[in-house]
Amino acid sequence: MTNEGSAGIVKTQLFTFAQPPGELKLESGQVLGPITLAYETYGTLNAARDNAILVAHALSGDAHAAGFHEGDKDPGWWDSMIGPGKAFDTNKYFVICSNVIGGCKGSTGPSSVNPKTGKPYALDFPIITISDMVNAQRYLIDHFGIDKLLCVVGGSMGGMQTLQWVASYPERVKSAIPIATALKHSPQQIAFDEVGRQAVMADPDWREGDYYGHGQPEKGLALARMIGHITYMSDQSMEEKFSRRLKEKNYSFKFKTDFEVEGYLKYRGDSFVKRFDANSYLYITKALDYFDLTSDKHKHHGKHQETKFLVIAFKSDWLYPAYQAQEIVRQLKIRHADATYCEIRSTYGHDAFLLETEEQTHLISHFLKKVHKEGH
Amino acid sequence: MTNEGSAGIVKTQLFTFAQPPGELKLESGQVLGPITLAYETYGTLNAARDNAILVAHALSGDAHAAGFHEGDKDPGWWDSMIGPGKAFDTNKYFVICSNVIGGCKGSTGPSSVNPKTGKPYALDFPIITISDMVNAQRYLIDHFGIDKLLCVVGGSMGGMQTLQWVASYPERVKSAIPIATALKHSPQQIAFDEVGRQAVMADPDWREGDYYGHGQPEKGLALARMIGHITYMSDQSMEEKFSRRLKEKNYSFKFKTDFEVEGYLKYRGDSFVKRFDANSYLYITKALDYFDLTSDKHKHHGKHQETKFLVIAFKSDWLYPAYQAQEIVRQLKIRHADATYCEIRSTYGHDAFLLETEEQTHLISHFLKKVHKEGH
Repeated sequence: MTNEGSAGIVKTQLFTFAQPPGELKLESGQVLGPITLAYETYGTLNAARDNAILVAHALSGDAHAAGFHEGDKDPGWWDSMIGPGKAFDTNKYFVICSNVIGGCKGSTGPSSVNPKTGKPYALDFPIITISDMVNAQRYLIDHFGIDKLLCVVGGSMGGMQTLQWVASYPERVKSAIPIATALKHSPQQIAFDEVGRQAVMADPDWREGDYYGHGQPEKGLALARMIGHITYMSDQSMEEKFSRRLKEKNYSFKFKTDFEVEGYLKYRGDSFVKRFDANSYLYITKALDYFDLTSDKHKHHGKHQETKFLVIAFKSDWLYPAYQAQEIVRQLKIRHADATYCEIRSTYGHDAFLLETEEQTHLISHFLKKVHKEGH
Repeated sequence: MTNEGSAGIVKTQLFTFAQPPGELKLESGQVLGPITLAYETYGTLNAARDNAILVAHALSGDAHAAGFHEGDKDPGWWDSMIGPGKAFDTNKYFVICSNVIGGCKGSTGPSSVNPKTGKPYALDFPIITISDMVNAQRYLIDHFGIDKLLCVVGGSMGGMQTLQWVASYPERVKSAIPIATALKHSPQQIAFDEVGRQAVMADPDWREGDYYGHGQPEKGLALARMIGHITYMSDQSMEEKFSRRLKEKNYSFKFKTDFEVEGYLKYRGDSFVKRFDANSYLYITKALDYFDLTSDKHKHHGKHQETKFLVIAFKSDWLYPAYQAQEIVRQLKIRHADATYCEIRSTYGHDAFLLETEEQTHLISHFLKKVHKEGH
């Protein structure tokens, strides 16, 4: 009974910061504004405004987490988890999903028009961090008049935003569910991001970021996505999905797509360039790499004790290995936080946070029920 | 006592197939010729010609495995293992290392002159396989009048050549040491190779392979190498070597090289394009991906029983994980072969076969002593 209903037909909304402040002082020291956030909501905010759950998305995600856009065949990216009777039960909870700044799905990012020039920002867009993303979301939560979120949740980069929410606004987060994530990017994680960025920037169609009106650096961005996809799957899930199956009966003995796995990666790369902005890819991966909640400036944040944590990792996730989630728990325990750790047996690799619906539903629905009840 | 002496000053030699056959019928059905192999030897072939060890190199390796080229500061790529008193003791053994066909280090490859056109082959060079590489080496071994090699050894692609030698010429290989290798490339291994190839081919300087005289597709090849390097190291070895150390004191908040790991990868990528041919990268990775000793055509090779095996894997090697080496051993045991398996605790990842000198020396020198003695 984990997939009881659909959030139905939904529409992405836009929220532009009202004055004041209308703009955001960024971690870099630069100021960004005006800022628009794209978001969706599912369910109803109750009178006490204490049933709100913020869902944070991953690198290439967007505000469309659940339900269907009018006319669409495919639902939002976490539809298996959000809806009536699902893990994030919209009969009980008010679920908000906000697209991050720096993105290209409605929120202000490098492809947005720079009000100073009337042209897309491109590389004039300032470098943003996970903390900046969260600070922008805070205005959206204020806009809803929500003092305290029942829960912040997300996988991968969504998990970083989750951790950052608690670090930045501990008094506004009752519970947090970081999934398949880390307190900081490791050198291997940085390295994979960097080759992705180099792939984009090596493409002459990137034009130093000034490609708007000329078309995307398609080859470079597709390549970056292909690299990414390898890291999102596991050795085992690739074996199960493709093994060494060929597209034709025999080896081509040419530089052609011989193996199904090659065709799949190309397909994923090519479809990505149709839906994602190359500069956003650069900005968001940079935010990932800069993320480090263990750095000195966070040493004196110690106030998470009140927030309850459910930390989830997946056994076959080698991009965000379970030891990183265990380190989150270790740091929380040192601060006497109430933290539960669950490592789900899955062969899906990092993608598991999008695919392991049943196990996650079981863990999360119970956790939320308990946390929600305690408030009453 | 693992590093007793140097093989001294050495020189790469060239061997061009004498007629007949002067050419090689390839697995693809095409014919390649004439063929030159670059090779080096260390130590002395004894009168019985029964002390010869063939060392096979990895993707970007060459014939220069040990000793120094006149005027060079750095020795050959496996100098720690080959020399007087070392694992491959040149006081006892005659060690041969041959550059593979398809390469760019003296053996016939895509950058060689096509006798039919007087210009470099480029993509007119036929697709070659690991089996073709081994068949070419067989002529070199014939040339030395060696009926039976005391040992064939190699790591990574060198390990595939080792396995292929036994599959193709079981009666000519007394013992074999495949290291950090597999019976077949997995979809994940194919996927990493494919993104490397795509990186090269997406570079407009690649010119459909016809770049000779115009300069290499430097950006694409450097990118392929950067991807490769991530897979050669382990998460842990990257953490130990770089952690999150910055090149400058603070984040640049620009798309610059912030982290040491990024600088390292760029350096490795940039230096690679100075020493390796981009088309050779394509051909050799394709040979890796086509490698599959478990395919039907090999099912009736069952004659390895006479060859003694030492199979070595490394715990942190995630590119050629230990389970692949265990599968080699399993297949050998099914055929009643004499096979010893050793998994070395190492944090170096796939690079361990180049770095874990002491453990490998210990294992290999004893194995060789035993195998050599049995012949007398």
